[in-house]
Amino acid sequence: MKLIIGNKAYSSWSLRGWLACKQSGIAFEEVVVPLYDQNWDKRREGDEFAPSSGKVPILWDGDAVVWDSLAIIEHLNEKTGNSRFWPTDPAARAMARSMAAEMHSSFAALRRKHSMNIRQSYPAKQPDPDVLQEIGRIMELWAQARARYGGEGDFLFGDFGAADIMFAPVVTRFITYSLPVARFAPAYMNAVIQHPFMQDWIAGAQEEDWVIEKFEMEPAD
Amino acid sequence: MKLIIGNKAYSSWSLRGWLACKQSGIAFEEVVVPLYDQNWDKRREGDEFAPSSGKVPILWDGDAVVWDSLAIIEHLNEKTGNSRFWPTDPAARAMARSMAAEMHSSFAALRRKHSMNIRQSYPAKQPDPDVLQEIGRIMELWAQARARYGGEGDFLFGDFGAADIMFAPVVTRFITYSLPVARFAPAYMNAVIQHPFMQDWIAGAQEEDWVIEKFEMEPAD
Repeated sequence: MKLIIGNKAYSSWSLRGWLACKQSGIAFEEVVVPLYDQNWDKRREGDEFAPSSGKVPILWDGDAVVWDSLAIIEHLNEKTGNSRFWPTDPAARAMARSMAAEMHSSFAALRRKHSMNIRQSYPAKQPDPDVLQEIGRIMELWAQARARYGGEGDFLFGDFGAADIMFAPVVTRFITYSLPVARFAPAYMNAVIQHPFMQDWIAGAQEEDWVIEKFEMEPAD
Repeated sequence: MKLIIGNKAYSSWSLRGWLACKQSGIAFEEVVVPLYDQNWDKRREGDEFAPSSGKVPILWDGDAVVWDSLAIIEHLNEKTGNSRFWPTDPAARAMARSMAAEMHSSFAALRRKHSMNIRQSYPAKQPDPDVLQEIGRIMELWAQARARYGGEGDFLFGDFGAADIMFAPVVTRFITYSLPVARFAPAYMNAVIQHPFMQDWIAGAQEEDWVIEKFEMEPAD
């Protein structure tokens, strides 16, 4: 398999696709192709790795091309015999899939106003009301998953899985921007950050030598 | 199974969840719960059917609660032995999943500016540039799927499936707003509209006696 990603410091969707590949346990080649120039406002022309939506991540697996992180998760879930991504309990599995899908289509304010920026941390500021509302919803989802299905494990449904993969970039945003979270949340967030796959990704982000100035500014009040 | 939907005239996500239930071949009870009042600006309070994101559709299947249309598709796909929703060919399956996921997270301008409105049709007007760009992308996706995997069938990947379910509300928007489409597209769009499940839904929308005024205005120039 070959996974095309944008970069490690800023590309939250790349992180999800990459974590999914790691979680599959299948060897894969990692190809970093910055799809945007340093001004982040135009896509590079003629890029051979953008046959589809022009977005990363893209997984090439034999004849199969999968160009969305949630589709990559389902593709790899099937390929690994439904064993590594979703909980086995049907009710837990339904909840995990719903949470992953909600992350996939929602939380626009958080994503727009608090871009993933693995290498930075900023002091706490009062978030906008729409961001606060989205954080509240995420806390509700995390709390329900942990309370119902977390069991002895450190992750949303006990073991590390697809739901954690989908929320991993949100965990980094909460930390980077010192966003307000519920009292139970830091233990979960710490488990995500300390996971070996995340440590590997964070180390990769630290080694990247390019910087997108626009994303390095501290968010305005 | 019990499926909670909002309404049939306007709720595009309800349509996707409902088509998925029909496609599963499993009997289900349909519960219409308008989550918004007639002004479409506040959710009804105390609604027992909104345990989660407050959005429809929600599928209740025994202990499992699935509250997103794409998660409903994957839930029912597993439940039906992977036979009814995605193509069997791995490359086709990967493409169908990617297209469904792209529909799930994208095309914001089309969705915002051309709300689904099953009962109406409006004369053609020049769409906004962002809408035109999104229509172009959808044409590209449809054309690739039909050319590579449509075969003798009428649908994106031959037989009616999850990709068609995800794009069905877009088909109705293209017709309602007389939006410009590629020459190959009307044959596919007609196949979707003529599908027995869609005919059933459209008949249900015609029978609804409530109207959201805001959505009945012709879109501004």
